[in-house]
Amino acid sequence: MSQPTAPAPEDLATLAVKTLKFLAIDGVEKAFSGHPGLPMGAADMAFVLWSRYLRHDPADPHWADRDRFVLSPGHGSMLLYALLHLSGYDLTLDDLKSFRQWGSRTPGHPEAHLTPGVECTTGPLGQGFANGVGMALAAQMTQANYPGLYHHRIWGIVSDGDMMEGISHEAASLAGHLQLGNLVYLYDDNKITLDGALGDTMSEDVAARFAAYGWHVQRVDGHDHAAIAAAIDGAVAQGVKPSLILCRTHIGNGAPNKHDTHKVHGEPLGPTEMEATRKALGWPTDKTFWVPDAVKALWHTRAEAMASEHAAWRAHELRWMAEHPGLSERYVSTRDRVVPTDLLAQLAAAAPAQTDATRSLAGAIEQRVAELVPSFAGGDADLGGSTKTPIKASGKISATDFSGRNIRFGIREHAMGAIANGMALYGHHIPFTATFLTFSDYMRPAIRLAALTGTRVIHVFTHDSIFLGEDGPTHQAVEHVAALRLIPNVDVWRPADAVECAAAWAGAIQRTDGPSEIVLSRQKVAMPTSPTRPGDAARGGYVRVRESGGAPDVVFLATGSETGLAEEAARVLKAEGLRVRVVSMPCIEVFARQDGDYRASVLPPQGVRVSVEAGRTDGWWRWVGEHGLPIGIDGFGASAPAEVLAEKYGLTAKQVAGRVREFLGR
Amino acid sequence: MSQPTAPAPEDLATLAVKTLKFLAIDGVEKAFSGHPGLPMGAADMAFVLWSRYLRHDPADPHWADRDRFVLSPGHGSMLLYALLHLSGYDLTLDDLKSFRQWGSRTPGHPEAHLTPGVECTTGPLGQGFANGVGMALAAQMTQANYPGLYHHRIWGIVSDGDMMEGISHEAASLAGHLQLGNLVYLYDDNKITLDGALGDTMSEDVAARFAAYGWHVQRVDGHDHAAIAAAIDGAVAQGVKPSLILCRTHIGNGAPNKHDTHKVHGEPLGPTEMEATRKALGWPTDKTFWVPDAVKALWHTRAEAMASEHAAWRAHELRWMAEHPGLSERYVSTRDRVVPTDLLAQLAAAAPAQTDATRSLAGAIEQRVAELVPSFAGGDADLGGSTKTPIKASGKISATDFSGRNIRFGIREHAMGAIANGMALYGHHIPFTATFLTFSDYMRPAIRLAALTGTRVIHVFTHDSIFLGEDGPTHQAVEHVAALRLIPNVDVWRPADAVECAAAWAGAIQRTDGPSEIVLSRQKVAMPTSPTRPGDAARGGYVRVRESGGAPDVVFLATGSETGLAEEAARVLKAEGLRVRVVSMPCIEVFARQDGDYRASVLPPQGVRVSVEAGRTDGWWRWVGEHGLPIGIDGFGASAPAEVLAEKYGLTAKQVAGRVREFLGR
Repeated sequence: MSQPTAPAPEDLATLAVKTLKFLAIDGVEKAFSGHPGLPMGAADMAFVLWSRYLRHDPADPHWADRDRFVLSPGHGSMLLYALLHLSGYDLTLDDLKSFRQWGSRTPGHPEAHLTPGVECTTGPLGQGFANGVGMALAAQMTQANYPGLYHHRIWGIVSDGDMMEGISHEAASLAGHLQLGNLVYLYDDNKITLDGALGDTMSEDVAARFAAYGWHVQRVDGHDHAAIAAAIDGAVAQGVKPSLILCRTHIGNGAPNKHDTHKVHGEPLGPTEMEATRKALGWPTDKTFWVPDAVKALWHTRAEAMASEHAAWRAHELRWMAEHPGLSERYVSTRDRVVPTDLLAQLAAAAPAQTDATRSLAGAIEQRVAELVPSFAGGDADLGGSTKTPIKASGKISATDFSGRNIRFGIREHAMGAIANGMALYGHHIPFTATFLTFSDYMRPAIRLAALTGTRVIHVFTHDSIFLGEDGPTHQAVEHVAALRLIPNVDVWRPADAVECAAAWAGAIQRTDGPSEIVLSRQKVAMPTSPTRPGDAARGGYVRVRESGGAPDVVFLATGSETGLAEEAARVLKAEGLRVRVVSMPCIEVFARQDGDYRASVLPPQGVRVSVEAGRTDGWWRWVGEHGLPIGIDGFGASAPAEVLAEKYGLTAKQVAGRVREFLGR
Repeated sequence: MSQPTAPAPEDLATLAVKTLKFLAIDGVEKAFSGHPGLPMGAADMAFVLWSRYLRHDPADPHWADRDRFVLSPGHGSMLLYALLHLSGYDLTLDDLKSFRQWGSRTPGHPEAHLTPGVECTTGPLGQGFANGVGMALAAQMTQANYPGLYHHRIWGIVSDGDMMEGISHEAASLAGHLQLGNLVYLYDDNKITLDGALGDTMSEDVAARFAAYGWHVQRVDGHDHAAIAAAIDGAVAQGVKPSLILCRTHIGNGAPNKHDTHKVHGEPLGPTEMEATRKALGWPTDKTFWVPDAVKALWHTRAEAMASEHAAWRAHELRWMAEHPGLSERYVSTRDRVVPTDLLAQLAAAAPAQTDATRSLAGAIEQRVAELVPSFAGGDADLGGSTKTPIKASGKISATDFSGRNIRFGIREHAMGAIANGMALYGHHIPFTATFLTFSDYMRPAIRLAALTGTRVIHVFTHDSIFLGEDGPTHQAVEHVAALRLIPNVDVWRPADAVECAAAWAGAIQRTDGPSEIVLSRQKVAMPTSPTRPGDAARGGYVRVRESGGAPDVVFLATGSETGLAEEAARVLKAEGLRVRVVSMPCIEVFARQDGDYRASVLPPQGVRVSVEAGRTDGWWRWVGEHGLPIGIDGFGASAPAEVLAEKYGLTAKQVAGRVREFLGR
């Protein structure tokens, strides 16, 4: 790690901070929409951090050894955009002037996939906090495996809202447990929320709380540059604990009438207060989006220094690779997240020949994923024994050993999701998480952000229906598969057998532009009537059992454990002389992306379509049509053994065949 | 409050604790499924609490002045069932023997709607913790409004898993802020989780953390009855802070080989260890589900004492009502959650005549709800200025004044949902919550439990589509309306105008068997072409604009802000000579519950059906049929002004009319 740059002369620092404030004020004012208060209050700490500590190269936002910066309160986005612009990222003044407009790279809240230099998408509070923990964890894991190569840190600004959200507790507790000494958060402690004074809703001692988590905690005046720098130096110097610096700030600092009030939180200052602020801070009233030359020069100097750092590191990387011939290949493979092109074939070859619960089948195949894909790592929320996801050949991550690939997230599903997002955004990792399907509800905000950001994260969800049995309706997923399918840009796999499990893993690993869910049964599934072909399964939907003698009377569409059920019901109906096709649909989204000819070859116009899935039927109408029959479960489950539930909920082969017969009027 | 009962003689206490342990062991063993570890480890603290402190009347589980007990780690359900049976609730030994079986009242995790004496449904960790906070808050509010009438407390057992979940942070922070001195939690500090040692995943100092929240914190040996009792006495004596008693326990206490290991957490002891445990504790090996007579007598004595308490309170209630004639009527009205039978008409009369955003229209009508329904109370997650939900005629709840009806939950959506559940389960309240629709994802586990338990809670969600505009896709709901509709037993209202807002409020308030969501726009909606009739709106779907001259060519189905859009598109198409009907569907679930004749009168077989809703279309296929046209948004939104987004996403009247025209091939 480099030494901090010397502080700028006081006058220049003051000018630079004002520039940040007015870029934010002007951006919000021009958009007639936004949050000026946070940028104004946090400009000092952001200036100190970005001008002296943050090690990055604006010319290459993907430099692997860069520091990461997270703005967890994403509503302060104009501060981040101003910093990126001034630092020299590919973000112009015109971009700043297009704040919150259609097609701009400066949306209301920062979006990682849109804007160079934005490390993660933030806005929903608490997510950024946990993303940063994920980045710090990923950095520790990478540094443990490739010692001496990287020297970066994870920095962030966090807010009252982050502190109140439960996810901050989960992430902070785990960060303290794992002693992530490479993580430094500046807490914008401004005592104001959108609706009023923080004291109206919160009176906890945040410093004591974080000390209880095992964090290094300091308090400073958030407008005193020397104090902020000293605290950052202190955080870095101790180096073994994650660090929280409580920066007492004044929201809207500089606005003579609105500062320290919630009026400056979520709306433009307005012309009158903007004028008053310009006067109070001695800023030209006839210029907007103005950057004084001295401030430009300051950031330019910083960018040049950073370019040198980057160049030096490039040389260091080459040297390191030469000195570590044994590690280099694996290093490049993880850095570039290399995946074998024949992954599907290799995983299909590893598919168990005997059937079992899909959680067990997928767990066995996952071991092969871990062998073939070195950047694959992850863990579970205290259910590894049940989800079958721990990587057997690898060790557990702990505060004293980050070299393994198994992360024990604890009973912290929401943070698990957001930490996995942070790991994926950090790079070097294709992360996975695992828990019961019903707890996907706890993770939903994180899954949504992975989808929005196009982040490759894999969520394994087991115990995927009422057929988990005795644990009862609190633990029985009914609506969750359908609800996951509703989030845009999510692939939801619910495999029916070992080969489909292989296809799910291959699809999830090879997909680079969004998250995949792998949904698995607790109970054993049936063996397919004839062997599943990997290429079929990989198309998301295929003919599993073909009718004989003319167009089908009935076309079953099924997923997961109900595919075997549909096959069995088909046998009953075939014996009665019906022509029955069974279509397996392990991933509706992938199937929907196939060309029309293929889709029509799987789902012909003839025949009554019957979907069978042990969950909500709502989404199936699209596929069965208004004259079709969706069979599923539209209410809650119950506590009883699985075989009893099958009977009670009409999901035995005999009952399904009976319903189809009745529906056909036979 | 009554004085604690004197402790039982030591021999008898030991026998009673063993009885609890073996009822749990035998129940789990018979079911071949369950969690014996927690009941064995927590039997001591549960015995002390239930035999000496818990003030309740097993003969009347609904006694208003009873103490509430929450078992937050619901997987320890056999402990609760054993306590309920022994205490004298209507739960027999045969019920205990049916643990986890179809139709039993002893499901895998406790379900409040099934089993007398179970105050809330628990299992998904952290929910019970926050439910208890909601009960304690509701009790403070009730006691502030009806001073001197009630004297109960809220007790609970909480676990490691609860402590790790983020929701416990949110709820504990708020409980500390509000100084809920009537709440006492015993923390089963057993250092073991399902997958192994707690120390593998957590090392925070829980005592220091809770002290930071403003809780009263004590530590005791969780198997030392005198120490537990002393700590409870201490918690009660201080009286002004919520109290956490860390009880150091040994999971599976009494099992000679498996105690203190995770092997005893989630599966039966097995015959060998069960035998060994019987021997070690001197319990008959030839008896299962055995309750020694002395133990029966102990609980019988307790029940008699409690019956006397209850009878005394009944007399006290009558005296109190006589002494407080002014308060009595309101007391009965809140206690019984009385709702005017003509609520719909009264709310419709209060509907603003001018149009506005539905959040503003609903907010205005809500003020009338507050006047008419005294048990109505709730709050928002720091967005009251935007959701328009605060009750104007009432004050804010604070640690020093619980007499108001507005709760400021802080930026704690998940706890807000679970606290509202707790308030509703406590009684006396019809609670509401409010935040942006996108944050419904943060609350989903709590909404699900309200639905499962059949709890009347009202969730107001505003800013319900991409039309919130500049805040961008992180804040723009796309899939959320559809995702809420997937949870069984939830009514989702998305009103289109003031009268539909009145119908939504009336429906939500009058529904007694589950939660209702009221989903509202940020932006202004159109005035209806002709005045909406309240009775139509209350049916969940109705003909808003009727075609003229024969069967319709086109039937629009729309909700919320898109109903006006459909009306405008209909005008365009009518001008071109088409016969167009517009059906407004403010609540699909309520519409689906109407009789078939009515539904057919609204949705005739003729005409192409076109749904218009600014969100995922998946659920609409059921209503438009495979030859219909669902218009919506199946990807993420973007940051831009609302009117720009309407154009870009094809949701102007001209564009919608054009798509219909194209679809009809004209």
